[in-house]
Amino acid sequence: MSMFQKMVVAGVGLIGGSLALDMRRRNLVKEIVGFGRSEANLRIAKKKGIIDHFFLREEDIPSGVDFLLMGTPVQAIVPLTAAFLPRLGSGCIVSDVGSVKAEIVKGVEKVLPSGIHFVGAHPIAGSEQWGADAAVENLFHGRRCILTPNRKTNRAALKKMAALWKGVGAKVEIMNAEKHDRVLGVVSHLPHVVAYALVNALDQTKVDGVDLKTFCAGGFKDITRIASSRPELWRDICLLNRKAVSKSLGDYIRNLEKMKRWIDSGNGSSLEHEFAHANEVREQIV
Amino acid sequence: MSMFQKMVVAGVGLIGGSLALDMRRRNLVKEIVGFGRSEANLRIAKKKGIIDHFFLREEDIPSGVDFLLMGTPVQAIVPLTAAFLPRLGSGCIVSDVGSVKAEIVKGVEKVLPSGIHFVGAHPIAGSEQWGADAAVENLFHGRRCILTPNRKTNRAALKKMAALWKGVGAKVEIMNAEKHDRVLGVVSHLPHVVAYALVNALDQTKVDGVDLKTFCAGGFKDITRIASSRPELWRDICLLNRKAVSKSLGDYIRNLEKMKRWIDSGNGSSLEHEFAHANEVREQIV
Repeated sequence: MSMFQKMVVAGVGLIGGSLALDMRRRNLVKEIVGFGRSEANLRIAKKKGIIDHFFLREEDIPSGVDFLLMGTPVQAIVPLTAAFLPRLGSGCIVSDVGSVKAEIVKGVEKVLPSGIHFVGAHPIAGSEQWGADAAVENLFHGRRCILTPNRKTNRAALKKMAALWKGVGAKVEIMNAEKHDRVLGVVSHLPHVVAYALVNALDQTKVDGVDLKTFCAGGFKDITRIASSRPELWRDICLLNRKAVSKSLGDYIRNLEKMKRWIDSGNGSSLEHEFAHANEVREQIV
Repeated sequence: MSMFQKMVVAGVGLIGGSLALDMRRRNLVKEIVGFGRSEANLRIAKKKGIIDHFFLREEDIPSGVDFLLMGTPVQAIVPLTAAFLPRLGSGCIVSDVGSVKAEIVKGVEKVLPSGIHFVGAHPIAGSEQWGADAAVENLFHGRRCILTPNRKTNRAALKKMAALWKGVGAKVEIMNAEKHDRVLGVVSHLPHVVAYALVNALDQTKVDGVDLKTFCAGGFKDITRIASSRPELWRDICLLNRKAVSKSLGDYIRNLEKMKRWIDSGNGSSLEHEFAHANEVREQIV
């Protein structure tokens, strides 16, 4: 017996699309319906076999949906969920895959009627790619998926979501939403700001007659790969996780200022110590 | 006829060792002699066929050397060249592969006797790997090699060095040393400081009961890969290119502060504009 009968994926992109592919392959769901702003993207999703059919207006959501997966950019999750909620039947589980959790959990719970259950989720499997085109099977295998329940969360729904993510190969972690946001603020959101700022620092630097972009070797390319990520998506993540990102960014700026002072004053031993420490920590990240 | 008869590679690492391998393979040199502080590394180099034999004390440099390649960490290039110079015959060409040029060119020229020619060079082919073990054939194919002559540089020696680097597949660029340092300061040296500081920012962040290192996905790993580079090497590069690195770092910190203000004040449109601009610039870096 399938885990779900009818699932709606709102936002059939890298994450939502990949989850749908795996769920279908493992018979975890019978019918998959797509929703999104871009009909072209939904047509791709249908062609790839990710979804069975799709709808384009909130009010056209089919009846009998027992799982609504919000795979849209973070800013859209709360308002769009609110628009779907009056049209969902009792017992339906709503979940998301957003990179920010506290604001989303708070926002959805504010409008959640009794009988419908919400479980915040974040599978850590994003990349700079997007759209149904980017969806692949087995994306979550061995990756972490963080679930962020609180006291209000329905235990049966939480258990079902944990089983679902384990079912597609993810390692499930349970964490409160605020803790999730602090962790992701430093391991993911900060690095994106760092990468965007570094590319712009390059662009602002003028050296007579030299196209600096042509001098970027592997090091610069690796470090700025994530600056190819979608601007509006990361704008929203930074704003929705404002407190944690701002804190991490402030700490980071202070680190850089310290290093700049050491470079200016020729303090080689402090600089080497700092670099060597980073070296050791980096080796522990596998 | 070979381009050189007897070459000494001082510092048989990734760059010096790889150049030696290619020169031998293409018959650009007859005899290759290694020099370095680590006998273990020189033994590896001999075993790999990079060098024919080696010596460990400056005073044991053989006679008849017509090409001295300084492949050591940048800080050692000037003093070690100075130690070798009295033992080199007239007509010998000295060159280096250091990532910093102005201080090295200035330092070597200060002690250079007439009849011996120095050409500053920097093949942009480094990575976080090091040692004779890391040396490979064809490392320079399609890569840029920047030569940094000035008015004092012997034209025949410059021409020979350009031919040598073209001979191993590199694209040769001529640029003055100061310009080189400004270019590399932003495309290479700044990103290293950025990566080291980011790893340390992660290490300094404490979230109860969470080992943040285990939450680092592809994005964080890519962006901090170069933080695995040798600390003492990058300490020296930052200090020898102090002015340019400090300037780039200052510009970069101002970028981050601006972004932090936008995040704090919820200025989404400025943030998106900044991210989108980085997005466009990044696409042009191929």
